[in-house]
Amino acid sequence: MLSKNKIKFISGLSQKKFRDETGLFIAEGTKLVTDLSTAFECLILVATVEWLNTNPTINTLELIEVTENELHKISNQKTQQGVIAVFKKLEYSWSTNDVSNKLNLALEDVQDPGNLGTIIRIADWFGISDIFCSEHSADVYNPKTVQATMGALARVKVHSVNLKDFLSAFPSTMPVYGTFMDGKNIYNSSLSPKGIIVMGNEGKGISQEIEKLVSERLLIPNFPIGQKTSESLNVGVATALVCGEFRRRN
Amino acid sequence: MLSKNKIKFISGLSQKKFRDETGLFIAEGTKLVTDLSTAFECLILVATVEWLNTNPTINTLELIEVTENELHKISNQKTQQGVIAVFKKLEYSWSTNDVSNKLNLALEDVQDPGNLGTIIRIADWFGISDIFCSEHSADVYNPKTVQATMGALARVKVHSVNLKDFLSAFPSTMPVYGTFMDGKNIYNSSLSPKGIIVMGNEGKGISQEIEKLVSERLLIPNFPIGQKTSESLNVGVATALVCGEFRRRN
Repeated sequence: MLSKNKIKFISGLSQKKFRDETGLFIAEGTKLVTDLSTAFECLILVATVEWLNTNPTINTLELIEVTENELHKISNQKTQQGVIAVFKKLEYSWSTNDVSNKLNLALEDVQDPGNLGTIIRIADWFGISDIFCSEHSADVYNPKTVQATMGALARVKVHSVNLKDFLSAFPSTMPVYGTFMDGKNIYNSSLSPKGIIVMGNEGKGISQEIEKLVSERLLIPNFPIGQKTSESLNVGVATALVCGEFRRRN
Repeated sequence: MLSKNKIKFISGLSQKKFRDETGLFIAEGTKLVTDLSTAFECLILVATVEWLNTNPTINTLELIEVTENELHKISNQKTQQGVIAVFKKLEYSWSTNDVSNKLNLALEDVQDPGNLGTIIRIADWFGISDIFCSEHSADVYNPKTVQATMGALARVKVHSVNLKDFLSAFPSTMPVYGTFMDGKNIYNSSLSPKGIIVMGNEGKGISQEIEKLVSERLLIPNFPIGQKTSESLNVGVATALVCGEFRRRN
């Protein structure tokens, strides 16, 4: 049974302000909730009896059994899967030493929550464990981002940083990659298994300020190569192509 | 000035049924409308005076000048760019001979309009001029699809076909590629510059019926390679990685 207060509380978590105040976020659906429960503390699990009877137990501070209709009142999704959970947000620590020893992603102002979620899923697929987001990026705990990660958020650590300070924290021997229209064909470039790949904003790409900190300018060639184009790739698609090429090499 | 009838007519084009009845579709925004006007006949151009004063003329049967407020009434977008157009749908012909001489995409029941639009944009980037969609795929003229193509719809021909009949129309020498969890690592596979790449449904992948017609079973490896994973890639991302690898080779 879901009280009016509880409905208000859980629905409120769709708003960033309320997520920031409470330090909580919501996730919907069997795979997502199950995956996230391995990494995040579950405070409230809202589920139908049918869901509870057919799925493994999830540790939670509070369990609320509801009907399909009640679940519908707090859902952001078109189709219900019988479960919604409230999790506690996490903040991760990182060190320059750790970052220096692997491949990392940095995002400058990626603003579409769905794109951010897709990128987290791509990072998970390609074994990239840390993503560093500029302060004006989409909120990683936006329900649209969380849903788009398809559970990858349980395995990829997303950090919010001042991107200029972050990139400046490394010695000049640390390669920082970025994609530009006048960059060097990625397929002919040397790619290190350790470094930072910077992806820019959906409309503006990488800013001039951050561009100065990029040491390796790459280009994802279109086809036929060299054919002039005013076109661009979606930032999620570009991230996949870049990460895929790094991992193909190494 | 936008009459009530016109508002009803244009808004109605968000519905597939009305698009099918009229043979028309809508597009919003400067780049999209401009790009599409090079390939599709424009029947109605609805624009603000400011937009008309600052953009090149677009040939249209009917021009309606409106205020921002009027435009808002027929818009599906959060932010207005001053222009919405009604275009006439196109049906393209194709021949097995043409298809046999280049790289093509075939989609089985890709159902999310945004994913379909993203895939059309990817095809455009990688110089793939024809996409063959199964009959239960998303509608290419859904406003969400059209918007997600970012104008690529002007350059990529999307055909609706019975996918089984389509794939069966080619001799067994024509390579048909598909991705499967037990496929061969794409990076170690031979890839022809001529053939058909089949991408499957978001949840179910490629059906058993279509799988029988796939001659080359590929796998996009995750990283580290061989690490067991229950994860998957979004169909747009997977399409980009596959097309990118074909074009890198050739």
